[in-house]
Amino acid sequence: MTTLNVEAHIKQLGEQAKQAARAMLKATGEQKALALRSMAEGILAARDEIKQVNAKDVALATAQNLEAPLIDRLSITDKTIDQMAQGLRQIALMPDPIGSLGPTSVRPNGMHVSQMRVPLGVIGIIYESRPNVTIDAAALCLKSGNACILRGGSEAFHSNVRLGQIVSAGLASAGLSQQAVQVVQTTDRAAVGHLVTLTDYIDVIVPRGGKSLISRLAKEATVPMIKHLDGNCHVYVDQGADLVMAENIVFNAKTYRYGVCGAMETLLVHKDIATQFLPVIAQRLQAHGVELRGCPETTKIIITANPASEDDWATEYLGPTLAIKVVSKLDEAIAHITLWGSGHTDSIVTQDIDTAERFQREVDSSSVYVNLPTCFADGFEYGLGAEIGISTNRLHARGPVGLEGLTTYKWVLRGHGQIRG
Amino acid sequence: MTTLNVEAHIKQLGEQAKQAARAMLKATGEQKALALRSMAEGILAARDEIKQVNAKDVALATAQNLEAPLIDRLSITDKTIDQMAQGLRQIALMPDPIGSLGPTSVRPNGMHVSQMRVPLGVIGIIYESRPNVTIDAAALCLKSGNACILRGGSEAFHSNVRLGQIVSAGLASAGLSQQAVQVVQTTDRAAVGHLVTLTDYIDVIVPRGGKSLISRLAKEATVPMIKHLDGNCHVYVDQGADLVMAENIVFNAKTYRYGVCGAMETLLVHKDIATQFLPVIAQRLQAHGVELRGCPETTKIIITANPASEDDWATEYLGPTLAIKVVSKLDEAIAHITLWGSGHTDSIVTQDIDTAERFQREVDSSSVYVNLPTCFADGFEYGLGAEIGISTNRLHARGPVGLEGLTTYKWVLRGHGQIRG
Repeated sequence: MTTLNVEAHIKQLGEQAKQAARAMLKATGEQKALALRSMAEGILAARDEIKQVNAKDVALATAQNLEAPLIDRLSITDKTIDQMAQGLRQIALMPDPIGSLGPTSVRPNGMHVSQMRVPLGVIGIIYESRPNVTIDAAALCLKSGNACILRGGSEAFHSNVRLGQIVSAGLASAGLSQQAVQVVQTTDRAAVGHLVTLTDYIDVIVPRGGKSLISRLAKEATVPMIKHLDGNCHVYVDQGADLVMAENIVFNAKTYRYGVCGAMETLLVHKDIATQFLPVIAQRLQAHGVELRGCPETTKIIITANPASEDDWATEYLGPTLAIKVVSKLDEAIAHITLWGSGHTDSIVTQDIDTAERFQREVDSSSVYVNLPTCFADGFEYGLGAEIGISTNRLHARGPVGLEGLTTYKWVLRGHGQIRG
Repeated sequence: MTTLNVEAHIKQLGEQAKQAARAMLKATGEQKALALRSMAEGILAARDEIKQVNAKDVALATAQNLEAPLIDRLSITDKTIDQMAQGLRQIALMPDPIGSLGPTSVRPNGMHVSQMRVPLGVIGIIYESRPNVTIDAAALCLKSGNACILRGGSEAFHSNVRLGQIVSAGLASAGLSQQAVQVVQTTDRAAVGHLVTLTDYIDVIVPRGGKSLISRLAKEATVPMIKHLDGNCHVYVDQGADLVMAENIVFNAKTYRYGVCGAMETLLVHKDIATQFLPVIAQRLQAHGVELRGCPETTKIIITANPASEDDWATEYLGPTLAIKVVSKLDEAIAHITLWGSGHTDSIVTQDIDTAERFQREVDSSSVYVNLPTCFADGFEYGLGAEIGISTNRLHARGPVGLEGLTTYKWVLRGHGQIRG
């Protein structure tokens, strides 16, 4: 395809998606659940064929000398297939978020005023190598009553197109528009630029992938995005902490998984308990292979810690490294988090109720914890049932985003002929 | 000022606003109410001086031959001053939206998960000639815990600067940062372009003014906007309508005020009641001076109606003109609204419960009414207590926006040392 055709293709997908989004306003919860279950059956029935098509993508990627972790993410195994089918069935079972009414108020003139939960409209999903995202994203957009346009990694192109066909068949079997889920039919990178500026047809873009992809998209996008950038998370151990609890929380926050966005990257410790607490936690973390980098106060107490520079306060390591700073009081901890943090997830360990309340009010992050490790930053842990991603936006959806983040509301008013005077 | 200085000035305002927004996280509801009451007193105490400064703006505008309605909007009278003071006191009395917690759920591991209402951060308000918006906007942003940057019309510059000084004094008297409300200190139009792209410091732009201003800003803006575009509103009189009620609703929807965004612009009438209903409503509207433009079916019934073209279905008249179309069924009414409407406010008149429900579900507008005139589209009528404006966005705030539209939430989790396994 030439660049011109790519633009026309994306515009056509946009027009079709908008039509499909309108048709989706009539979709019942039953139809959506039926479509999701049909897709699960379709995936299981096409197991061997999906693996064959995927093997073609893997062979191409291997021939192009792509890196091993990328090829790993690209590969569809029997386990991946089972998980996709299981995910579809779980989402089918979830309550339908669409059409529910919030509290109704009655105005002095007797009008009833309420909000109804409705789909956002057309959602563009841009993601990288994992082809199973095609199924996850389609399922979440469908369940929330939206139409979507899916643009996966070019290396997973054949797998994504095949999975898209199964999704289409599932939609058709439930009497829903097949254009409610569309896979971009080109690997041309220009498609992404057209998608993120298609304001006439796309209501929101949800990018799923690494920070470099998302930062780049954010610069170009004129369509609003629900996006995730940095996760530079802090745990502050207050002078009023239970130090045994603090040790377990800090150890878990760092070591649960180094690569998750909720992993602790900087530990802040109140000076009055630093000499008691730091040697204990240092030993446990170092025994686990974590490199420690500390402020001057810290390196006096932990002589095996390396000195930290300003860069360390700003870094999201996503690896076995931890920055440590001793602070003189709560205000200094909050000021450090305000200056260096990314507004993702920050936690205090303290038994003092006033200190906990101040921390939770004054730390301006999307999740603020008391006596919990930051690695709980996850929609399933919060009870959302499904997770679209974690948002570092301030508008619309913030923090872990469930199905509700893919919806909006409309005002519904009912009267009996009241007029405005 | 040169263009370079304008850019530096706006950037400085942004930095100061971000600092102030952080300080506002500590502001109590009491402090905010005190500041608002002090501002009300300040305005009343400076009554004569405000009028003198405003007279200077009016004299300049008159010398520049600005149009009479603009000069009218620009003028501050004793009544304007009383209304500003009264508005401040009313907002002072409203409940503080910040810090409240939503429902708390308890997860299987015993963690408590909840959402706390928090300020959006820094809000940019861009508005036109009315200087009282300086006070309204400052009050709403302050009450919702935000810092704001105010950029009014250049013709109201001296008035806005003076009102800004009174706001500053009110903030100081309550121990709040004076930079929580800042008025742009230049009339250079370049300031607006810098404001709408200051993504590092401004979280949202709220433009208040005519459609041309807002469309222009939307094209340039990279900061998200809570904006209002068209209000092409419909009333559909169904075959199941109470025709006396329908007559009163339709008359009110058109004539309550021609210029409001909730004014009805197109009337849709079911064919089975058209010959009975149209002559009655036509007579009443024409007697009131409303020009009628109809589809071929309509002009057969109302011979004094002019023929409507496609342009009429698309036009927001904001004046004494009404387009009328006869439709054969509910689906045709919904399809017309979907095709030509602007997603603002649309209403059905019907006594049939299933028809009402389908209309309310399938019409994809920010407000959908049953048996009410569209002119109720107003935050005060909805019970919001205050109105920032009406949003035609789908993300974040939709329809009439109260104080809550200037807030967001953060997740607050409390535990007792649970760890993730």
